[in-house]
Amino acid sequence: MTCAGQQETSSSEELGKEMHNFMGELYPICRSITGEGVRETLRAIQKRIPLEIHEVPSGTKVFDWTVPLEWNVSDAYIVNREGKRVVDFKAHNLHLMSYSVPVRKQMRLEALKPHLFSLPSHPDWIPYRTSYYKENWGFCLRHTDLEQLCDGEYEVVIESSFRSGSLTYGEIYLPGETSDEVLVSCHVCHPSLCNDNLSGVVVSVGLAEIMAARARRYSYRFLFIPGTIGSITWLARNEHVVSRIKHGLVLTGIGDEGKMTYKKSRQGNAEIDRAMTHVLRYSDEHHAIVDFSPYGYDERQYCSPGFDLPVGCFMRTPHGQYPEYHSSADNLDFVKADSLARSYARCLEALELLEGNQSYMNQNPKCEPQLGRRGLYRAVAGQNEKQTQELVLLWVLNLSDGQHSLLDIATRAEMPFREVRQAADSLLRCGLLVEVGKL
Amino acid sequence: MTCAGQQETSSSEELGKEMHNFMGELYPICRSITGEGVRETLRAIQKRIPLEIHEVPSGTKVFDWTVPLEWNVSDAYIVNREGKRVVDFKAHNLHLMSYSVPVRKQMRLEALKPHLFSLPSHPDWIPYRTSYYKENWGFCLRHTDLEQLCDGEYEVVIESSFRSGSLTYGEIYLPGETSDEVLVSCHVCHPSLCNDNLSGVVVSVGLAEIMAARARRYSYRFLFIPGTIGSITWLARNEHVVSRIKHGLVLTGIGDEGKMTYKKSRQGNAEIDRAMTHVLRYSDEHHAIVDFSPYGYDERQYCSPGFDLPVGCFMRTPHGQYPEYHSSADNLDFVKADSLARSYARCLEALELLEGNQSYMNQNPKCEPQLGRRGLYRAVAGQNEKQTQELVLLWVLNLSDGQHSLLDIATRAEMPFREVRQAADSLLRCGLLVEVGKL
Amino acid sequence: MTCAGQQETSSSEELGKEMHNFMGELYPICRSITGEGVRETLRAIQKRIPLEIHEVPSGTKVFDWTVPLEWNVSDAYIVNREGKRVVDFKAHNLHLMSYSVPVRKQMRLEALKPHLFSLPSHPDWIPYRTSYYKENWGFCLRHTDLEQLCDGEYEVVIESSFRSGSLTYGEIYLPGETSDEVLVSCHVCHPSLCNDNLSGVVVSVGLAEIMAARARRYSYRFLFIPGTIGSITWLARNEHVVSRIKHGLVLTGIGDEGKMTYKKSRQGNAEIDRAMTHVLRYSDEHHAIVDFSPYGYDERQYCSPGFDLPVGCFMRTPHGQYPEYHSSADNLDFVKADSLARSYARCLEALELLEGNQSYMNQNPKCEPQLGRRGLYRAVAGQNEKQTQELVLLWVLNLSDGQHSLLDIATRAEMPFREVRQAADSLLRCGLLVEVGKL
Repeated sequence: MTCAGQQETSSSEELGKEMHNFMGELYPICRSITGEGVRETLRAIQKRIPLEIHEVPSGTKVFDWTVPLEWNVSDAYIVNREGKRVVDFKAHNLHLMSYSVPVRKQMRLEALKPHLFSLPSHPDWIPYRTSYYKENWGFCLRHTDLEQLCDGEYEVVIESSFRSGSLTYGEIYLPGETSDEVLVSCHVCHPSLCNDNLSGVVVSVGLAEIMAARARRYSYRFLFIPGTIGSITWLARNEHVVSRIKHGLVLTGIGDEGKMTYKKSRQGNAEIDRAMTHVLRYSDEHHAIVDFSPYGYDERQYCSPGFDLPVGCFMRTPHGQYPEYHSSADNLDFVKADSLARSYARCLEALELLEGNQSYMNQNPKCEPQLGRRGLYRAVAGQNEKQTQELVLLWVLNLSDGQHSLLDIATRAEMPFREVRQAADSLLRCGLLVEVGKL
Repeated sequence: MTCAGQQETSSSEELGKEMHNFMGELYPICRSITGEGVRETLRAIQKRIPLEIHEVPSGTKVFDWTVPLEWNVSDAYIVNREGKRVVDFKAHNLHLMSYSVPVRKQMRLEALKPHLFSLPSHPDWIPYRTSYYKENWGFCLRHTDLEQLCDGEYEVVIESSFRSGSLTYGEIYLPGETSDEVLVSCHVCHPSLCNDNLSGVVVSVGLAEIMAARARRYSYRFLFIPGTIGSITWLARNEHVVSRIKHGLVLTGIGDEGKMTYKKSRQGNAEIDRAMTHVLRYSDEHHAIVDFSPYGYDERQYCSPGFDLPVGCFMRTPHGQYPEYHSSADNLDFVKADSLARSYARCLEALELLEGNQSYMNQNPKCEPQLGRRGLYRAVAGQNEKQTQELVLLWVLNLSDGQHSLLDIATRAEMPFREVRQAADSLLRCGLLVEVGKL
Repeated sequence: MTCAGQQETSSSEELGKEMHNFMGELYPICRSITGEGVRETLRAIQKRIPLEIHEVPSGTKVFDWTVPLEWNVSDAYIVNREGKRVVDFKAHNLHLMSYSVPVRKQMRLEALKPHLFSLPSHPDWIPYRTSYYKENWGFCLRHTDLEQLCDGEYEVVIESSFRSGSLTYGEIYLPGETSDEVLVSCHVCHPSLCNDNLSGVVVSVGLAEIMAARARRYSYRFLFIPGTIGSITWLARNEHVVSRIKHGLVLTGIGDEGKMTYKKSRQGNAEIDRAMTHVLRYSDEHHAIVDFSPYGYDERQYCSPGFDLPVGCFMRTPHGQYPEYHSSADNLDFVKADSLARSYARCLEALELLEGNQSYMNQNPKCEPQLGRRGLYRAVAGQNEKQTQELVLLWVLNLSDGQHSLLDIATRAEMPFREVRQAADSLLRCGLLVEVGKL
């Protein structure tokens, strides 16, 4: 391993741990699609990146939807006849179904049961349940605990509030050379669940930090929003800038140890689709590229037919395909620092690819230019060895006809983008290429 | 099996038997490309559906062809020295080569032999031979019988007539909401052969009966015509309506037990091609989809370059690929009631698919509409189960952008058309879709 | 084997031997990118075909390049202390690195070694090295000989000259019915190396001989040029005719026993690409079709983005993939007469395909014409046998709609081009086809 390689590994290791620590900080907060938990989360992010926090009043119409009342909880529990809290929101915020209405009553177990959710197949895990848009209440608990509940009376208390408050989301915009944008979006509405989606949150924060520190061809927009209603709200309030989004990624579930999964945008062959496919192909990662489907995360909204944005979704194991999904087992142990670091690295490579994916015109298009005279070609010829470096120069020259981007060239040449980008840089320095549009 | 399932099976069974019985009625008739046999066949069909019978005079020019003289036979036989009929048209109408000229003479076996056809590889079967366009005569007989013919004199008698009569075909037109047409065509020129093509005839009759009883978006045209010269004649007389044919099927050889075969139209990706492919893919049938080739049945004419109609050919085992083909073994035993019933069912599904294959505009194209509020979405979220019904709704909404028909959506979503159609109906009821062209 | 078959085989055998003999004549000549060796080679070719020999003065600017000084050698050797020539250009012209500058000096082995090239993995072979565009000198020798050189002083003599002369190339132009051209190009700059590229030279000569003797729809241009600088020079001097080149082949390395390799043009689906693919597919040859890459022979220049000509490269084992490549083992034994003959035959088939690949309009596009009446269809119908000859007639009629060339038809019908061509000829004789553009 080279010195540079060691350095990279160690910095990647550190970064993974750092992201995992931040996740540990955010884990205990009880988030939902509205409420104090989201605000607290965004304030924690604000300590790292200059996030703008937006508040959208309850009742605001956003396309076919309405921003719901703000929901907060102070306490929630079930007490048995002996006065013992048999289910206690304060012990784990997954115990309370999200958006449960206030309750205070005595109930027999029989009447209570339809409001109790457990996972018989994983009796020690607490499931995660929500009822955002239908008035309801419920508790989630370990199946082992559910089975030990005796018949009889229980006191059920939910001290939740619904008030005309607001939906809260965070946004950071990093202007670049052009107003064309790259969008990175993650949802911040899930309570104590790590892979879904504190993993997406901490990686997004890391990407925003590094992109903020770099020169950027593109402008970047990072969104930290409640799922579904958040992206709908953002799109409704920002219709005028939507057309600037040239590439986008929804980041979710990227901290588990499963193989990386890139789900293509609705367009299917957008530059971001080709960029992520390229990055994963030339990585060491086990991975899968899957077609768009209208089920999943906020790409559902970005890729709705009225927008049809080039936004894909980067995951590891897709939602619902790992047993820990939406349960208390999706915790700080389930997500690994190394998984976070490697997910971050692939995203960053994709952003770098987009930054560097330009199209050039060969300034000497008739026959090859004499590379030898420019120090770009070997002097003694006749050997048998593969001359990869020369080959990549020739590919860039041959396809720089204004019809091919560097990613097109890398794809056709079956070479890593990085090498193609370096070759283009050498040729630019010699004046053999000029960027398309800058002639 | 559900009650409905049982009912369907039993009605399908009955239908198969019914079609097989009708075939039994038509089997003994000696058909050719002209003559009384075709007329008798069409009159039998007329008892079931209001067929219009057309007579086109001999000598009529139809493109590069001329309607031939009408051919009829009263008797044909070969008598040996002992006065015994060793070959007798009255015993089986395949014994006489179709369009044989009248003959009455004494011949030695040696001179007779070039006019005798048998199948050495299937010595008990009588072959089927024709000589429509070249003056000739011949007898077809079992190879076992041929081998027992002694040397010596035979009396050969063919009491056939060629007269300036007409070519006969049947046609039924069922008007629909639009003048756009679906064509179903089958040939009625073969004598006592069941799979080729009484199978196509009885299934076409069945389809005409059911479509006549239904509300139709498309108009339907069923043709019962002699092969080749019949379709050429129909096309020559109906050039002005040909452009109305939007989809078509030639039905032939659909009663054997072999796997279903759909041969695509010359266009190769016409809606009928995609419809039949979809229907067969989502059926339990063993099947094959094959590319167009200019050999086969009347699709040769419909798909000639001057017409290039979207007409495919639905078969089971393709012609020439089963030994019974064009021999007396293609009889009432060879064709099964169940095969007929299932061929009929697949055709009907394809017609239903065409009827229902509309394109819609999502009326809420920016972000998803709130399905929950319309009772189309589950209330308690978070579960792991596949939500197929919601998924199909989302697919229809996502792709209803005016560019995708429901079949396009079913194909991309990899779901049966029927489910996609049902989802579209739900969304139509909510006002979330409007048919393209009806905005 | 038929008589015609025998004749063809024997004539092919003779032709192979003849080409191999000619190669033997050219083998000893010391060629380079300029100089007397090229002239001598072209004069030998001129005895067979009326080649025009062009001289382009040193210093001529050709696009980004300059025609170099002319290089010639009278002698070159290394003498040891005992006065023995341990390396001698006169023994094998590969011993001297091409374009070596004049040298005359005493050197110790240590100082000499950086100028000595050998192949340790093939110790008995002399490698081939060049230094055209960087001032340098060197000797190539067997590794066994290199290892026996004792320490001590050597006299090094290179009697080479660089003078303002010219670059020499040969060209023959065979006018055809149209000014549209087929280009055949081969490089003549390699010294005593047989596969690379006397094989290309002798096959090109053979093709020029036969095409000169035939009626031609296309005009033909054969180029015998030094690699790289030769094609650049030709293109620079002939920019005005380049657009006439409709198809082209670079011929190189077609005498070894490896499988045939066709490397597609940059366009990737040019007619020549489809023609060579078709020819090889319907041949008995082991072969591979590979995509264009900008490394290789003069197709690099013809396919540079400013020209993007439809020029592919026909090889057997690609350069660098056989150990004998660029060494003294690429000699008269390595190249086989039979390999030359078969490479020639495939090229000729491709040229014949291009000549015959016309597009026609079916004059009876509505329904099939009655082929029987024209003697093109069997009289007695009903048999089971495949009627290939009729099928090919039907394919040609069906697809002769002005959108399909005969090669398109052969490809779709999956039939050899020759049969499709013959069917078209039959139909032309009946007046059923008219060539597109001649209506």
